[in-house]
Amino acid sequence: MESATKFSVRTTDHSDLINITSNVSRAVQELNLEYGVIHVFVMHTTCGLTINENADPDVVHDLLHRLEAVAPWKVSRDRHGEGNSAAHLKSSLLGASVMVPVSQGRLVLGTWQGIFFGEFDGPRTRTVYCTALHSK
Amino acid sequence: MESATKFSVRTTDHSDLINITSNVSRAVQELNLEYGVIHVFVMHTTCGLTINENADPDVVHDLLHRLEAVAPWKVSRDRHGEGNSAAHLKSSLLGASVMVPVSQGRLVLGTWQGIFFGEFDGPRTRTVYCTALHSK
Amino acid sequence: MESATKFSVRTTDHSDLINITSNVSRAVQELNLEYGVIHVFVMHTTCGLTINENADPDVVHDLLHRLEAVAPWKVSRDRHGEGNSAAHLKSSLLGASVMVPVSQGRLVLGTWQGIFFGEFDGPRTRTVYCTALHSK
Repeated sequence: MESATKFSVRTTDHSDLINITSNVSRAVQELNLEYGVIHVFVMHTTCGLTINENADPDVVHDLLHRLEAVAPWKVSRDRHGEGNSAAHLKSSLLGASVMVPVSQGRLVLGTWQGIFFGEFDGPRTRTVYCTALHSK
Repeated sequence: MESATKFSVRTTDHSDLINITSNVSRAVQELNLEYGVIHVFVMHTTCGLTINENADPDVVHDLLHRLEAVAPWKVSRDRHGEGNSAAHLKSSLLGASVMVPVSQGRLVLGTWQGIFFGEFDGPRTRTVYCTALHSK
Repeated sequence: MESATKFSVRTTDHSDLINITSNVSRAVQELNLEYGVIHVFVMHTTCGLTINENADPDVVHDLLHRLEAVAPWKVSRDRHGEGNSAAHLKSSLLGASVMVPVSQGRLVLGTWQGIFFGEFDGPRTRTVYCTALHSK
C-alpha cells in the first residue's frame, strides 16, 4: 500500500488560489485512508496551502488583494535578486501544508470549507504531495 | 477505540481568542493517545487556531488588535457580499489546524504555551474536531 | 523505539531565521522514520517555524524586514507589559509547527525548500521537539 501520492496544479495568473479539494479527495481514496489525517504539502517556496470558503469566488478575490496589501510586490528594502520576496512572504504566511481529518474514507470539512492551492509568482505548474496518516 | 472526537466553543465577542488547552487535553485522554500528535481542526472559515501565550490576557488583546490592523474590517476593494473578508483572511493567516505533540498521555507544551481558538466574525458557537495520530 | 526527540537552536540576533533542515534530517534518522511525516514543534511563544527558500540569504533578509512591517515592534495600543507583542504576532503568523513528508528515510522537500526556525525576541537558546508519524 502506498503511503503517499502526488498531483500537479497549473495556475494561469500571477497570483492565484485554486480549489484542490477534489484532488485531495482522490488522493485519500488512492491511499486507502479510512480514518486519520491527510497531509497535503506544496514543494515550492512561492506557493502556499490554505483552507477557506469554497462557495463565493469573491472570497478568493478579496483574499488575493488583501494578501497583496500585506505583502506588496515592490518594497524598497528588498534585496533578493529575483524580486519575488512578496511571494515568499505569502508562502510563509499561509504555510506549505494543510492537514485535513478523514473519517470513513472522506475528508472532514465544514460546509463552506475548501482546500486551496496558492501560487504567488505564477503562472506555473506545481507539485502537491499527499501523505496518509492513519489514526487506527 | 475512537480515532477522533469533537467539542464546541462559544464566543461572546465579534473577535475573540479563547484558550481551549483543557478541551484538547480532555480529547487526548478520551482518545487514549499516549505518544504522538493531536490534530486540532476548526470546521469554519471565519475561525482559526493558534498557539500563543497563556499567562497574560494582554497578549490576547494585543494579538486581536494587531490582527485587526493586518486585516481591517472594511477595505474598499472587497467584493464578498457578506462583508466579512477580514475574518476569512485572519482564518487563513492563523490556519485551520494546530498539531501538538503528546507524550505519556499529556500535551507537550512549553510553559507559556496555550492553544487558542480564534473567531473573527462572532459571536458564534463552533465545532473543533480532534484526531489522534499515534507515533507508536 | 523512541517516537520523539529534541534539539536546541541558538540565535544571535533579536530577530532571526535559522536553517534547521539538517537538524530535522538527523531527527528523522534518529527516530527511524522511513515513510510518513515528521512533526517539528517549537515550545516558545516568540518563535515560529516556516519552510522557505534555502539558497539566497537575501530571502531571509527580506522575510525578516517584511514581517517587521506586518508586525512593528512598537504599537501604541499594545498593553502587554513585556513589550514583545510583535514577536507573539509573528509566532502566530508563522505557526508553532511544520510537518514535512518523509520517504525512504529522507525529508521530501522541493529543491529550494529549507526548514527555518524563527526567533522574534532573541537572542535566545530554544528547544525544538520532533515527533515521528509513520504512514505504514
